[in-house]
Amino acid sequence: MSAYPELEARFRRISVLRDGARVLNWDQSVMMPPGGAAARAEQIAALEVLLHELTTNPRMEELLDEAEAGRGGLDGWQDANLAEMRRRWRHANAVPADLVEAYSKACSASEKVWRKARPENDFAGMLPHLREVLRLTREVGAAKGAAFDCSAYEGLADLYEPDLRVAEIDPVFDDYAAFLPDFLDDVLARQAMATAPHPPEGPFPIAIQRELCRRMAEAVGIDFEAARLDETLHPFSGGVPEDSRITTRYEEDDFAQGMMGVLHESGHAMYEIGRPADWRYQPVGRARGMILHESQSLIVEMQVCRSPEFLGWAAPVIAEAFAKEGPAFEAENLYRLATRVERSLIRVDADEVTYPAHVILRYRLELAMIGDELDPAELPAAWNDGLEALLGIRPPDDRLGCLQDIHWYSGAWGYFPTYTLGAMTAAQLFDAAKRDD
Amino acid sequence: MSAYPELEARFRRISVLRDGARVLNWDQSVMMPPGGAAARAEQIAALEVLLHELTTNPRMEELLDEAEAGRGGLDGWQDANLAEMRRRWRHANAVPADLVEAYSKACSASEKVWRKARPENDFAGMLPHLREVLRLTREVGAAKGAAFDCSAYEGLADLYEPDLRVAEIDPVFDDYAAFLPDFLDDVLARQAMATAPHPPEGPFPIAIQRELCRRMAEAVGIDFEAARLDETLHPFSGGVPEDSRITTRYEEDDFAQGMMGVLHESGHAMYEIGRPADWRYQPVGRARGMILHESQSLIVEMQVCRSPEFLGWAAPVIAEAFAKEGPAFEAENLYRLATRVERSLIRVDADEVTYPAHVILRYRLELAMIGDELDPAELPAAWNDGLEALLGIRPPDDRLGCLQDIHWYSGAWGYFPTYTLGAMTAAQLFDAAKRDD
Repeated sequence: MSAYPELEARFRRISVLRDGARVLNWDQSVMMPPGGAAARAEQIAALEVLLHELTTNPRMEELLDEAEAGRGGLDGWQDANLAEMRRRWRHANAVPADLVEAYSKACSASEKVWRKARPENDFAGMLPHLREVLRLTREVGAAKGAAFDCSAYEGLADLYEPDLRVAEIDPVFDDYAAFLPDFLDDVLARQAMATAPHPPEGPFPIAIQRELCRRMAEAVGIDFEAARLDETLHPFSGGVPEDSRITTRYEEDDFAQGMMGVLHESGHAMYEIGRPADWRYQPVGRARGMILHESQSLIVEMQVCRSPEFLGWAAPVIAEAFAKEGPAFEAENLYRLATRVERSLIRVDADEVTYPAHVILRYRLELAMIGDELDPAELPAAWNDGLEALLGIRPPDDRLGCLQDIHWYSGAWGYFPTYTLGAMTAAQLFDAAKRDD
Repeated sequence: MSAYPELEARFRRISVLRDGARVLNWDQSVMMPPGGAAARAEQIAALEVLLHELTTNPRMEELLDEAEAGRGGLDGWQDANLAEMRRRWRHANAVPADLVEAYSKACSASEKVWRKARPENDFAGMLPHLREVLRLTREVGAAKGAAFDCSAYEGLADLYEPDLRVAEIDPVFDDYAAFLPDFLDDVLARQAMATAPHPPEGPFPIAIQRELCRRMAEAVGIDFEAARLDETLHPFSGGVPEDSRITTRYEEDDFAQGMMGVLHESGHAMYEIGRPADWRYQPVGRARGMILHESQSLIVEMQVCRSPEFLGWAAPVIAEAFAKEGPAFEAENLYRLATRVERSLIRVDADEVTYPAHVILRYRLELAMIGDELDPAELPAAWNDGLEALLGIRPPDDRLGCLQDIHWYSGAWGYFPTYTLGAMTAAQLFDAAKRDD
């Protein structure tokens, strides 16, 4: 077999096994009883190490070199695929196998502690795990920075978004941070002049929310012959294109949170479902970066589903599902609620205007921690000060502060910027699409 | 590293990855939407091939040879472990990797078709898949027969029960088949002389059955901090010792079926939970064969939970759960129902007396198909004739006949004898335990 086809065969296998690992991760978050945590961490670590070995097998480098030398014979897709193969190889090859295993296990253990520490507001109990994950993250980052000729932080972020650089992020985020305070004051002042929207009064039974959310997901394209909708503490979209695993969490007194969560994750799932089938298992057929991925979830959640048009359709569906009526359930009122701006503490519940402040805060803090300029013990204070500077409010506890997101505790460092860069991309893409209509 | 510790490290890894594959299998049966079938088949096949490669890696044979040469330095557990390693290696090494992959995919595809063909009573639609699975099964069997110096059928059965031979099975099964007709007549005549037990009248809401079954599983030792109970078409016990995945199916008009299913699978899970922790990931710490495994599920289901003592405890619990009262829910009546004998069509619902007839039928048919003495097209007729000869009743259709069990359609050939040999073992073990009390 010549080099390029053999590379396709090898990357296909890696991709299929990676899909299997995604099922193990989904099960861990959604189905697994607590007793299974240690054994599952072993399983996931074993698979990670194995995927790492398959990618860094010495034969792989020979094949990449050989295929690159014969590049002229490849078509456009194959050529792009080869470039993505090299990128994946460089990511894997940068990190030694024993570090991959130690990192995978430390992240699993830490994530498990976080699932208890967050509801219990126990940052002190979380701290040793955060330190250990950070220590290993910095090791991984240093190795990747060396491989990609960038900083440790950029080496980590590169996994989520190729070639993303601090020098590109900073001006965008600094600009927004400078723009926000006055703009937010204006928005809030303008909002205060109108009469307040009517809050829909619950309770909204979870069983009905589940059915309603299935219907909403179907409305944006999800087919439940090839998808599931389940519940988890930290919602995500997992699975594979033929078997999407959407998760959310429901609050009995607020149906919008679960519903918007489902619509957001449905956007992620729809992007995966739309990947080119011919390249399903090749690197070029996978999402290249999370900015575009996030833009697709936000086009659904923010651009489409918070529009008067969508809510005009959804309002009577919602009212009927909960057997409610009155002004709180009218489209106009739901639209005002869905686009309402306020200073708030929780990122995933934040509105479009204040959301970037949450991301900018996290970006600056993780950059400082990776750069060894912020000790994790100082994180709660730095978080609270930072949020106050950006949004003018201060979390009363760490549950509503630095314990709220899973990312750092599960080893996803360098991921946060993609949320806001994705939101900006979504707004631009949707605007262009509307003008093109 | 000397040979034996390196073997332990390699088999530990294989065992951990095998545990991961068990989660994929559980998800496939219990959670996966239909659209995911093809992708999941790819994932499971990739993992099977990989496990096969890890086991048949040329270094493995060298290490086994070397460790066996230095056997004197090993303690009893290590020595037994080494023997089990060799056995696993021989099983894997007998079958080429491309056959492993083709077989895994054919079985996944066939099992998927069976899940529709069974309720639709569509043997004709099933036949091409059965032919393909049988063709590959015979190839695997021939390879294993050569490796273990036995027949193809015995080579297949060896995976489920080491060293099981047709010459040992036949006399036991022939003896039972000869004994059964007169004995069954006697039992039924004696039963007919007593007044009939009262049938408990439903409906028995599924939600209540679920809760009741959790309580029953807990009563025999299951801890739901380390287990789940779910529903599937063909109940099984999956997962790992720290995370048991028990499955059952419920009928709204008969609570006993779901309950006895849960108790049976809980017995399997308890056996896994009781495996020696120090050898958790080594071949010697895994179940050696399915006869003993089955004996443990049947000690729970047949010996313990169909006893007057257990039902004396369970009867008021059951009555209270369903808010029922009257003679149908008294312990004495439930005991008579639980031990009632009748000529029936479905193996998994059969009583202790007639159950072996179902197994003997399947054993004889699979032996004939592997030996190329029975064409799969003739299976429905051979099945119906065989059941009539053994039990005096004839299935009205294939749904209640040769389509009822998943085994052949999912590639588990040579498994059936372990059920009845396990039942006999359970009766002997429990009898010995009682005498020892």
